[in-house]
Amino acid sequence: MTKISILYPTTTGARFDFDYYVQRHMPLSIDLLSRHRGFKGVSVERGVAGVPPGSPAAFVAMCHFLFESAEDFMEAFMPHSERLQGDMPNYTDIEPVIQFNEVLISR
Amino acid sequence: MTKISILYPTTTGARFDFDYYVQRHMPLSIDLLSRHRGFKGVSVERGVAGVPPGSPAAFVAMCHFLFESAEDFMEAFMPHSERLQGDMPNYTDIEPVIQFNEVLISR
Repeated sequence: MTKISILYPTTTGARFDFDYYVQRHMPLSIDLLSRHRGFKGVSVERGVAGVPPGSPAAFVAMCHFLFESAEDFMEAFMPHSERLQGDMPNYTDIEPVIQFNEVLISR
Repeated sequence: MTKISILYPTTTGARFDFDYYVQRHMPLSIDLLSRHRGFKGVSVERGVAGVPPGSPAAFVAMCHFLFESAEDFMEAFMPHSERLQGDMPNYTDIEPVIQFNEVLISR
């Protein structure tokens, strides 16, 4: 199982429109990607607090897609990459950190 | 719903013993925390690749605990914090990035 993590670093002076992200961008993204073979799930989160207590979260937002394999994700994403990446300026000017993960434990 | 993310940044020259982490530390951690009220799930991952292709993953490993609330997690974790944090040098010398997240979408 592969998890694709899209992490938006907390950046001074940057903007992140959660209304647009949660009500427009992510529903579109999920609608397009969840139709594809191998889609297993998705989670979208808002960074609330860091450690130690009182420190800001390192990431203002995170999104995690779960697919059977990285190949399944790429096949799902590539046909829509321009549309989805082109929508990003509508909610943020932060460059996300993206990585592929092998899921070792899940329960 | 609250997700607690523990992210280990990829660090040149650092060590991370996945055998110990996956076979000893995380099973102990899950055993202790999953007994508590509000535990909803856990995921443990190994960073495989970054974006653009060929770049390393920003995080060598990630762990995400899902709890009903941050309070439930703290109540579950605090009685075992010394034991669990004291076990960390057995698998890594990387200081993790830890943050609390509000789950906005989950499916």
